[in-house]
Amino acid sequence: MSIAEIISVGTELNLGQILNTNAQFLSSSLAELGINLFYQNVVGDNEQRLCETFLRALERSDVVILSGGLGPTEDDLTRESVAKALGRELVLDDEAVTVLQNQFVGRVMPQNNLRQAHVPEGGFALPNPKGTAPGICIPVSNGKLVFLLPGPPRELQPMFNEAVVPIMREHKLTQGSFFSSTLRCSGIGESAVAELLADLIDRQTNPTIALYSRLGEIDVRLTTRASSLTEAAVIMAPVKGEIVSRLGSHIFGEDACTLASALLQQLATSNYSLSVAESCTGGLVGHMITNEPGSSLSYMGGVVAYANNVKETMLGVSLDTLLSHGAVSEQCAREMLEGALGAFRTDAAIAITGIAGPSGGTVEKPVGTVFVAVGCRGKNNVVRLNLRGDRAAIKERAAKEAIRQLLLLLRG
Amino acid sequence: MSIAEIISVGTELNLGQILNTNAQFLSSSLAELGINLFYQNVVGDNEQRLCETFLRALERSDVVILSGGLGPTEDDLTRESVAKALGRELVLDDEAVTVLQNQFVGRVMPQNNLRQAHVPEGGFALPNPKGTAPGICIPVSNGKLVFLLPGPPRELQPMFNEAVVPIMREHKLTQGSFFSSTLRCSGIGESAVAELLADLIDRQTNPTIALYSRLGEIDVRLTTRASSLTEAAVIMAPVKGEIVSRLGSHIFGEDACTLASALLQQLATSNYSLSVAESCTGGLVGHMITNEPGSSLSYMGGVVAYANNVKETMLGVSLDTLLSHGAVSEQCAREMLEGALGAFRTDAAIAITGIAGPSGGTVEKPVGTVFVAVGCRGKNNVVRLNLRGDRAAIKERAAKEAIRQLLLLLRG
Repeated sequence: MSIAEIISVGTELNLGQILNTNAQFLSSSLAELGINLFYQNVVGDNEQRLCETFLRALERSDVVILSGGLGPTEDDLTRESVAKALGRELVLDDEAVTVLQNQFVGRVMPQNNLRQAHVPEGGFALPNPKGTAPGICIPVSNGKLVFLLPGPPRELQPMFNEAVVPIMREHKLTQGSFFSSTLRCSGIGESAVAELLADLIDRQTNPTIALYSRLGEIDVRLTTRASSLTEAAVIMAPVKGEIVSRLGSHIFGEDACTLASALLQQLATSNYSLSVAESCTGGLVGHMITNEPGSSLSYMGGVVAYANNVKETMLGVSLDTLLSHGAVSEQCAREMLEGALGAFRTDAAIAITGIAGPSGGTVEKPVGTVFVAVGCRGKNNVVRLNLRGDRAAIKERAAKEAIRQLLLLLRG
Repeated sequence: MSIAEIISVGTELNLGQILNTNAQFLSSSLAELGINLFYQNVVGDNEQRLCETFLRALERSDVVILSGGLGPTEDDLTRESVAKALGRELVLDDEAVTVLQNQFVGRVMPQNNLRQAHVPEGGFALPNPKGTAPGICIPVSNGKLVFLLPGPPRELQPMFNEAVVPIMREHKLTQGSFFSSTLRCSGIGESAVAELLADLIDRQTNPTIALYSRLGEIDVRLTTRASSLTEAAVIMAPVKGEIVSRLGSHIFGEDACTLASALLQQLATSNYSLSVAESCTGGLVGHMITNEPGSSLSYMGGVVAYANNVKETMLGVSLDTLLSHGAVSEQCAREMLEGALGAFRTDAAIAITGIAGPSGGTVEKPVGTVFVAVGCRGKNNVVRLNLRGDRAAIKERAAKEAIRQLLLLLRG
């Protein structure tokens, strides 16, 4: 497998003024092309540091891709620095001149634009249909390739896809294709997943296995190189089957599936309607569900019962329950569930009540104590959660776990 | 001026699976602290490449900040690699053990979590209130400092601000002090702000002026170097006053203020209560409001009336309105507002109905058409919005604009 390295050039990156989206675009594109990427670099608009970084990259990689610093102004010096590092002269590229002049038809081309038509000797210009600065490809010794691409993402991306990829293919630097499959898990921590899969992760070769955690969710991602999606599925099947059997119902879906979309799909198969009664999550469950296009098929609506008297008036929670058990209690969650099922006349419902903090906790019910009740057509379940994190994290974990609990109930 | 270098660790970065937002956060923060940043690096989870990159960074910089790879699993090896490169043993840090164990009160801590309590000899743990993995600071020779920070941005950012910055100040690595003041704007586009402030931005020197845009919001950030906050305030006052007079009511607050916190503060000054009736935003307004600690003082609750019959039964919208004007209409928004005020008996309310897409649009009411009604004690206002973006963007813009509309009404 060939090796690539990325150098993003620009003082604005080192000042944190812009987000380096080019690096992500290039690295995900290289992964898909079966090209290894071991290092990424960012350097400012400084000739010495740029030359040094470039030469180290060229030493250890087959393809070096630089982005940024190709513009017409004084501080754009990627072209000059690379030429200097390679010991080559900058020469005027006729085709680049024509391309540049065509962009200024009917307008005077500022003289400094001509700098952009120069390429290091032995190199050639890459067309830039979206901007003024042409890109540059420079074949160097040992079959290595250097690419200089413009900084603006809307220029870089089409140039990479339309000019750089074909050249890399022609030089046989790309290899097969990578396919990934992601098992999406919830209701379990990252370290517990890692322990359950320890031996598989230890002896991983093909497919590789990687864990990614988000708040309340873990992705288990399998990646393999194959000539087709079908072949990839065959290669991944045994390991995937083993992981599925170990993680069981903690896996709620695959790939682009979310907890909310999994729930909506499950509801749709039975033609069940859904309502939600939320206290501490404040509307987040409804927000997550309605983020899914088409959610209006199953989701009827909800009540955010933040104040206790709203729990009484809108959901019929009894004053006795609020006084003797408190608003954060199993009994209150049960009555909120019944209230939602009654008020919205839905088949299924979710109810949540808890303490998101930072204040309001007690010894018996510390911040992070949340009761979730889920029900559907006579079946129901209530769980008590002890969640950690700040207010936002507790809300998000509670909302996700509530959706997961109803999903579990529906899936039996 | 001292020199820092950033090393972002993680194979997921080299595969392009995540965007390196940590690098931008760290580089902009370093710029504000008056610390030079010349190089940024990304390396995968590979000991040899990590060691090599780390030693080069330590050679040419005063502060090396690594992020990522501190988790409990086998492929998290930043801690081990840095210890090896420095020729130091990993030792158990008692304070880190206590911090870790506190997070697992009432649950069994998987054994592999203990790895996270180890620090290279001579280093010490940095508390992580937002996650399990503590950070690490290692003072090395020549007064240089090495910091190991967790990868998740919500853990890295507070740890940098609350632990790393004070240590760097103590070691006199920061220079002067930069003070920033942010004017937070909404209800106006970035290019409109840029035009209104064009001359100020052109001739900016001290303070500098920068615009940052988020969905539905623009920050105007003034930055100056000064010896004290008071001095900074004096330097910024004239420019700030000029910007405030030009942007007027588009400015809803300063610094950490959010639209929701501004609204809650405004409600609290009059001791007004609030309820919300949401359709297309699906609970997002309630979620944004309840993200603010203490929101229960003013916010009573809300109804998510997604289905039309819920608008009728829970909010008293008339069938006639739904049939003759449609659910997405000024009339329906008005009736939802009245319904919320009546059902929750609050002083103030917000109502939203619209089309978030991707389907459901018509020629007269395309996707992005949203009606917002706000009212408080007899005063009310309805606006029609034409929002752009995908489903998530339309929901977010609508929720923010609805909060802003009530804020405007209350501020008169």
